[in-house]
Amino acid sequence: MKMNNDATSERRERGQALIRQLYGEVGAQTLRSLNETAPDLARFIEEFAFGDIFSRPGLNLKTRELATVAALAAMGNAPAQLRAHLHGALNAGCTQQEILEIILQMVLYAGFPAAINGVQAAKEVFAARTEK
Amino acid sequence: MKMNNDATSERRERGQALIRQLYGEVGAQTLRSLNETAPDLARFIEEFAFGDIFSRPGLNLKTRELATVAALAAMGNAPAQLRAHLHGALNAGCTQQEILEIILQMVLYAGFPAAINGVQAAKEVFAARTEK
Amino acid sequence: MKMNNDATSERRERGQALIRQLYGEVGAQTLRSLNETAPDLARFIEEFAFGDIFSRPGLNLKTRELATVAALAAMGNAPAQLRAHLHGALNAGCTQQEILEIILQMVLYAGFPAAINGVQAAKEVFAARTEK
Amino acid sequence: MKMNNDATSERRERGQALIRQLYGEVGAQTLRSLNETAPDLARFIEEFAFGDIFSRPGLNLKTRELATVAALAAMGNAPAQLRAHLHGALNAGCTQQEILEIILQMVLYAGFPAAINGVQAAKEVFAARTEK
Amino acid sequence: MKMNNDATSERRERGQALIRQLYGEVGAQTLRSLNETAPDLARFIEEFAFGDIFSRPGLNLKTRELATVAALAAMGNAPAQLRAHLHGALNAGCTQQEILEIILQMVLYAGFPAAINGVQAAKEVFAARTEK
Amino acid sequence: MKMNNDATSERRERGQALIRQLYGEVGAQTLRSLNETAPDLARFIEEFAFGDIFSRPGLNLKTRELATVAALAAMGNAPAQLRAHLHGALNAGCTQQEILEIILQMVLYAGFPAAINGVQAAKEVFAARTEK
Repeated sequence: MKMNNDATSERRERGQALIRQLYGEVGAQTLRSLNETAPDLARFIEEFAFGDIFSRPGLNLKTRELATVAALAAMGNAPAQLRAHLHGALNAGCTQQEILEIILQMVLYAGFPAAINGVQAAKEVFAARTEK
Repeated sequence: MKMNNDATSERRERGQALIRQLYGEVGAQTLRSLNETAPDLARFIEEFAFGDIFSRPGLNLKTRELATVAALAAMGNAPAQLRAHLHGALNAGCTQQEILEIILQMVLYAGFPAAINGVQAAKEVFAARTEK
Repeated sequence: MKMNNDATSERRERGQALIRQLYGEVGAQTLRSLNETAPDLARFIEEFAFGDIFSRPGLNLKTRELATVAALAAMGNAPAQLRAHLHGALNAGCTQQEILEIILQMVLYAGFPAAINGVQAAKEVFAARTEK
Repeated sequence: MKMNNDATSERRERGQALIRQLYGEVGAQTLRSLNETAPDLARFIEEFAFGDIFSRPGLNLKTRELATVAALAAMGNAPAQLRAHLHGALNAGCTQQEILEIILQMVLYAGFPAAINGVQAAKEVFAARTEK
Repeated sequence: MKMNNDATSERRERGQALIRQLYGEVGAQTLRSLNETAPDLARFIEEFAFGDIFSRPGLNLKTRELATVAALAAMGNAPAQLRAHLHGALNAGCTQQEILEIILQMVLYAGFPAAINGVQAAKEVFAARTEK
Repeated sequence: MKMNNDATSERRERGQALIRQLYGEVGAQTLRSLNETAPDLARFIEEFAFGDIFSRPGLNLKTRELATVAALAAMGNAPAQLRAHLHGALNAGCTQQEILEIILQMVLYAGFPAAINGVQAAKEVFAARTEK
């Protein structure tokens, strides 16, 4: 981990590009909706969440998305964000099988309800992408 | 995901081998301690957690351990198991930097306290392995 | 904190008055619905939650509601109650900006999904009150 | 707790029978839906959750279902599974009053929102069973 | 559930008697310690938690304590209270095997770390009572 | 909420000053310890948590610290951070009674164990400051 002295605008642009790549229209819609009510939260998602953290070297995007899917499925209290990251995992190159594997594994750390709800979310996201 | 018809003894042996490989003496101690009080829980860890789930093909052990570290750091209510899986992640071939990266990422999904406590746990585990 | 020896009926009336003041029709509806199935839970909300605790001196209602919004947004598993307390915070005199500030701050302790979902809930509550 | 050396097919059949007994069509539907996307998760529910654990001697089904209702109401992040276990509790012979009592008790360990949401779920399940 | 119009002092005495019965010196110590810093919280534990809720008819104390052990083991973030209720469950007449069974069952709803930590807590409580 | 274009070094300095003001030596120690293992997490605490978020106008530091104490007491899985913010709340000008009031209120949203553990943490922090 080394120092990052980019100016704020560079952080934000890097974050915006990554959000476009990983979440496409789903991400854009969330940010537009937030932007009306809490523009600084939208900005911190771009600058900090994606500009500072998610874009760091050291782990590839596939691994980052799988770990996020695992954590959100285990916590079970952020279903909209779980769905966004299921799109992100697929867009980062994860296969459906890899995603289902990591959700299944969460049976061990968060129990069956968490894994069942994670699989149902994945089923809906997979279906929504097939329809298009 | 395909059917797995192994007999119980095969499931258990496969689990025991994987536990030895990933957690060594730390895992053996936990199982011995559980075995005195709740031998069936110890058996289910071997048969189900490691014999059925963690040993599945479809994801390598590095990815499984990183995702578990992510989920346990995010949930923040199982510090002993987080430490065990930090050992497991290192034994599966993760570098210290990869582990710290995935814990840092949890800032985004579970906040700073979860990430700080995850890093402190990693620091202790890394130090304990250097001392030996 | 000093002893409170009010009779049960006084505790209940004090609670009912506070519920009316803070949640208006939203609170009345929740209590009527609970009353059909679990009348004692409805009673304990009036007597204990509002008659004993929320009406204590020592903190004003604005601070109490902001702290409740913070806690419920951070925990993320009680969206209906978060919405009720968003109404309560506004009725206690908090501004929309103060409410959004405290939700934004929860990014630090519970991560971005909790803050995003908190802001979306606030957006809906703010809009519902404007329509009337 | 004693060793259980049943073969996989026996575990699965025992689990399937128990699921039929406790959850009827609600359980069958969940398993069919899971089976399309994650058949091994469906299988583990049958083999492990119900074949190995829930069917163990040592506690009767009423007590097991009441404790599950308590835990799921307290955690508050698995509403669909809470509803399934409310059906299970009734099918295991719990009365509506016993179920409401255990949910009310969760006020003490998880707060009022958890208990309120638990009672609302119970109200819906009780009503759905009366309509039929 | 029917109305309870006892005066405050009756509620408190009923609660104190139940705390003595279920937790003995462990409970008394917790209340003395709380009493120095937050005497009203100590009072609410006596009046509301035990005087109003835990002492209700409709469920016996064994079932109430088993459900509390289940919920606290599943949530995993209140180890001191889990230990107190493990004493309470034994004092209410639960056997060690019943307690271990309900903790084991939590594997299904909260995962292996929750169940492992619950069993370790039970092991310590069982040992502490044998020593005396 | 308006745009903030400060350069990174200004954000960091603002954060460091606020950490010094609120947490003194406790905060400095945490950051030094993190700095050895995960220097970028230490930097993000300074830049983002305190430079961007906690130092925003719109809420005073007393209110921010009380809300953080409420949220951390309610979540119950970050005891070290709860203690740090108890110091922060006192340093921001909260009285001991205000802090105990907000913790007591969490009985309603997270149950008695969360409030009891919060009061015990407060008792320890208050005592530690008196000794000096």
